[in-house]
Amino acid sequence: MLTPYDDTYFMKKAYEEAEIAFEKGEIPVGVVVVIKNRIIARGHNLTETLNDVTAHAEMQSITAAAGFLGGKYLRNCTMYVTLEPCQMCAGALYWSQLSRLVFGAKDEHRGYQKFGVQLHPKTEVSQGIMEQECSQLLKKFFIEKRNLN
Amino acid sequence: MLTPYDDTYFMKKAYEEAEIAFEKGEIPVGVVVVIKNRIIARGHNLTETLNDVTAHAEMQSITAAAGFLGGKYLRNCTMYVTLEPCQMCAGALYWSQLSRLVFGAKDEHRGYQKFGVQLHPKTEVSQGIMEQECSQLLKKFFIEKRNLN
Repeated sequence: MLTPYDDTYFMKKAYEEAEIAFEKGEIPVGVVVVIKNRIIARGHNLTETLNDVTAHAEMQSITAAAGFLGGKYLRNCTMYVTLEPCQMCAGALYWSQLSRLVFGAKDEHRGYQKFGVQLHPKTEVSQGIMEQECSQLLKKFFIEKRNLN
Repeated sequence: MLTPYDDTYFMKKAYEEAEIAFEKGEIPVGVVVVIKNRIIARGHNLTETLNDVTAHAEMQSITAAAGFLGGKYLRNCTMYVTLEPCQMCAGALYWSQLSRLVFGAKDEHRGYQKFGVQLHPKTEVSQGIMEQECSQLLKKFFIEKRNLN
């Protein structure tokens, strides 16, 4: 059976969250958390709005998804995030025991893979979904920001 | 001039937070954040109470200290924490640009140092303050927990 629910479908939803962040003047990163093709949490970066370095899209979405599930572990969940998670968010994902992580653009400078941060052994990783779009949105943000300063 | 405000003084305050966590049935880790000998944030682990893997003492205290300061960076701040931070918390401290981290017990299994997680280059680290007491409280917690199950 054909289904619209593939990785690109959900990454588009995460991308929409990133666009909301962009409109708010936040570094445009968006997330959705999915279980059985159902989105149970959405989030976008709010570090400037909340004056809080911990307010990354992933962190908020982990908390929100756990709240929805009524338990703190994200087993059987997939997180779609437009940018490779940083050390903090990957560390949080480790604790969450997330089943699958799908990210769009790679973060060469601050991504967790550079630092050797460990995800949970049960977490599968896919990368590069909508990589160009996710990356372009970030580039556009930083170019506009530079021109404003 | 003699002053009561040394590392042991503040680690005792963090330890008191860990004791509160212990009483709540939480893994006993406590934190205080200090600027110019003034405690601006306190926190203890609340992962069970809040059903949230991100609710480590350090994460809550970073958010609280930034709220107090009115800015998201913890420059000129020292964090006292009874246990070596994990990957997530160390990653958050990286973003916070904390000036100084002081921790009590080393976490051989889950501590950030094992994984190569990077703190901010400006963050000085001291360790081993009240190491025995901090470590004993954790051991006591896990022994009691084991006996209950």
